[in-house]
Amino acid sequence: MSELSVKHLLGIKYLGEKDIQLIFETADHFKEVINRSIKKVPSLRDITIANIFFENSTRTKLSFELAEKRLSADVINFSAGQSSVKKGETLIDTVNNILSMKVDMVVMRHPNPGAGIFLAKYVNASIINAGDGAHEHPTQALLDSYSIREKLGDVAGKKVVIVGDILHSRVALSNIFALKLQGAEVKVCGPRTLLPKHIESLGVGVETDLQKALNWCDVANMLRIQNERLDISYFPTTREYTQQYGVNRKLLDGLDKEIVIMHPGPINRGVEITSDVADSKQSIILNQVENGVAIRMAVIYLLASKIKQ
Amino acid sequence: MSELSVKHLLGIKYLGEKDIQLIFETADHFKEVINRSIKKVPSLRDITIANIFFENSTRTKLSFELAEKRLSADVINFSAGQSSVKKGETLIDTVNNILSMKVDMVVMRHPNPGAGIFLAKYVNASIINAGDGAHEHPTQALLDSYSIREKLGDVAGKKVVIVGDILHSRVALSNIFALKLQGAEVKVCGPRTLLPKHIESLGVGVETDLQKALNWCDVANMLRIQNERLDISYFPTTREYTQQYGVNRKLLDGLDKEIVIMHPGPINRGVEITSDVADSKQSIILNQVENGVAIRMAVIYLLASKIKQ
Amino acid sequence: MSELSVKHLLGIKYLGEKDIQLIFETADHFKEVINRSIKKVPSLRDITIANIFFENSTRTKLSFELAEKRLSADVINFSAGQSSVKKGETLIDTVNNILSMKVDMVVMRHPNPGAGIFLAKYVNASIINAGDGAHEHPTQALLDSYSIREKLGDVAGKKVVIVGDILHSRVALSNIFALKLQGAEVKVCGPRTLLPKHIESLGVGVETDLQKALNWCDVANMLRIQNERLDISYFPTTREYTQQYGVNRKLLDGLDKEIVIMHPGPINRGVEITSDVADSKQSIILNQVENGVAIRMAVIYLLASKIKQ
Repeated sequence: MSELSVKHLLGIKYLGEKDIQLIFETADHFKEVINRSIKKVPSLRDITIANIFFENSTRTKLSFELAEKRLSADVINFSAGQSSVKKGETLIDTVNNILSMKVDMVVMRHPNPGAGIFLAKYVNASIINAGDGAHEHPTQALLDSYSIREKLGDVAGKKVVIVGDILHSRVALSNIFALKLQGAEVKVCGPRTLLPKHIESLGVGVETDLQKALNWCDVANMLRIQNERLDISYFPTTREYTQQYGVNRKLLDGLDKEIVIMHPGPINRGVEITSDVADSKQSIILNQVENGVAIRMAVIYLLASKIKQ
Repeated sequence: MSELSVKHLLGIKYLGEKDIQLIFETADHFKEVINRSIKKVPSLRDITIANIFFENSTRTKLSFELAEKRLSADVINFSAGQSSVKKGETLIDTVNNILSMKVDMVVMRHPNPGAGIFLAKYVNASIINAGDGAHEHPTQALLDSYSIREKLGDVAGKKVVIVGDILHSRVALSNIFALKLQGAEVKVCGPRTLLPKHIESLGVGVETDLQKALNWCDVANMLRIQNERLDISYFPTTREYTQQYGVNRKLLDGLDKEIVIMHPGPINRGVEITSDVADSKQSIILNQVENGVAIRMAVIYLLASKIKQ
Repeated sequence: MSELSVKHLLGIKYLGEKDIQLIFETADHFKEVINRSIKKVPSLRDITIANIFFENSTRTKLSFELAEKRLSADVINFSAGQSSVKKGETLIDTVNNILSMKVDMVVMRHPNPGAGIFLAKYVNASIINAGDGAHEHPTQALLDSYSIREKLGDVAGKKVVIVGDILHSRVALSNIFALKLQGAEVKVCGPRTLLPKHIESLGVGVETDLQKALNWCDVANMLRIQNERLDISYFPTTREYTQQYGVNRKLLDGLDKEIVIMHPGPINRGVEITSDVADSKQSIILNQVENGVAIRMAVIYLLASKIKQ
């Protein structure tokens, strides 16, 4: 297979295993090119990409923008507050306007789950979901799996625990889909109040004891705690959360083996993980960031080659 | 004639009919190029353009930026709140500073009528007025006329009604100048409180009854209602406005012929026009957006060729 | 010498006299190229530069961005409010993330003195300090000296007075270092409350009487008064400041010779200098702005050539 089975990247849910392999191999290529200090690939000279962010996002936006520029695409940026997106109509109008300007691809972050799917039905452009509410964040999951593959040689057969607020996390959901598709074993770990009720139906184990989870896994993906998302009343306090679900040096030293530590960023140092853990050799957090650009270049490149047909 | 009669685009008021034809023919060319999926024209490689927006504007700014990038110009963006523009001195200082950096062209939006004219006197660069208070918005009027020409073959002899808040609208004023210059017949329609007192002196008819206006016209250009601009006390409520001046399917079906519906965007769906009208075949709203990029490419290209001389 | 003695531009304090000469000669070259209307130099096609501004800055950011684009570098912009920079950790995390995306150079403005120095220790990229609190603003001092050299033929032996709030000014400190290094004589002038206590230890004269200072100097560099930085209680009022330390036509006409007037911008017209002075032939304020782009091109170019080795 030399092309993706999809026209859009709306979620990992819609990808096949071969799609992921193709994205990874394409990312390998781009990563090699960048490492030879060739920053600019003239692949997409006649492609215009609009980055439309209805939610703030410094890192993801920067990563997409770099990927686009390195592919020599033309880039326009559109940022809008959430206030202007209350009605679905507005979304269509905004995007239709941008597309009327002959934009070929839209990278969109939106607070509503399914916003990208909705859009893909109505507009004639390739859509990349850069995060839609608590639903999916597919490029994050791809770069996470890619980083595991880079560190451990393969994703298949690896044991991965995702720790934190699984209930509100698009990163968790996309990671679960991606890891299962590649044959990894997955557990989620966190306080009961932050775990979705029927999570087991996704083929995922549940572990509320962090130490047991870490003893089981090869890789721990520590999610960011987003206090602003939570209903304070049923949540453990930040302090309680850190005591029960924060990873520190002592906890890691008590394990039988050396596990890999991941985090999608930005880190709340001292909450989900301590600084010594974040900056240790076990941590591949900065590799994740580096791989993010290569993965996004691969996704954009592969989707663009379907547009040109 | 193969060049514009002006060095700046400050308003339609300063253009001749031949200028408009030249801009349209140049836009035809760029539109054809874009439609062949050639997004980038290496015309203006040594031109630097500064987009200076003292008022928020997502669409106009995006449209100019795309036009500039497709011409391969170097683009710098400068956005400033209105608070920093209270004194005329500041405007000159800001722009002089930007020009000292060897900028060749300035696209400026400013809340004060005449800001572009003032600027053109003092600085040595080509100025494009992207909206100056309630005065003019020439590229909008050009793209509106261009879209009528595209849809109906010609502007001359066509009957156009502009509906809405004529009093506060730079779009209305620039459209009136452009349409009259090309030999169209023009009426304005809206509540008396939103019509300028001596509007007839511009050679424009006045009609306060929407149904009569629509029955008369070939094209209805529905302006956006900007509640924030209006003195609430003398204005009909939004609901009253919609009842008397909003266009809906039923109203259009009651007419003898099929008229063309335009809107400069962004649409208040359900206020000026209903969604079924906005999305109908009679509507050329998205064509206006598409043509905006081609028109702006044409204007920038033609002004730039005067700089190079 | 054909290369800089430093890997970063953290402050004038770390430069040798030959570094400054090399930067000036390189800027001469770029200025000549720009004046021949060749706006784009394909020097840095494989260099990615991140502009990271933790403080608002319209002009300096614009000047750096233009310099980078004219060198054909890839540019990404990152602006952050000060609120997100309370902890040193965050700075490192933010920048490490950006660097993981294979950025070669960081231009940073930060409210904390020494932020650039701190960063240069921890990250593997070339750092340019675009202002760090009240510490240094080296490119401003370089462009100031360069403008004096352009106007008067040389900096060595010239008498320069810096007028205003010396205590809180990074522009003043960097200028003092740069001017002394090149053999100029320097005095500072301002109310006692706005002069650092041991300023003489830098080899600088102190003069609280503006007329005497102007009679002595060849060049007066008028700093911007930043009311927001000052403790109101010990400061002369703006009116008192203008009366004692503002430069106006009458004051200049009373001098024996014609001195050169400089200002780093943005000008408070009528406070530090009157409009007739700012816009007179004695003023080289707009030359400073123009030279800023050439100087920044030179600094970026010279630092980039050290990266490539």
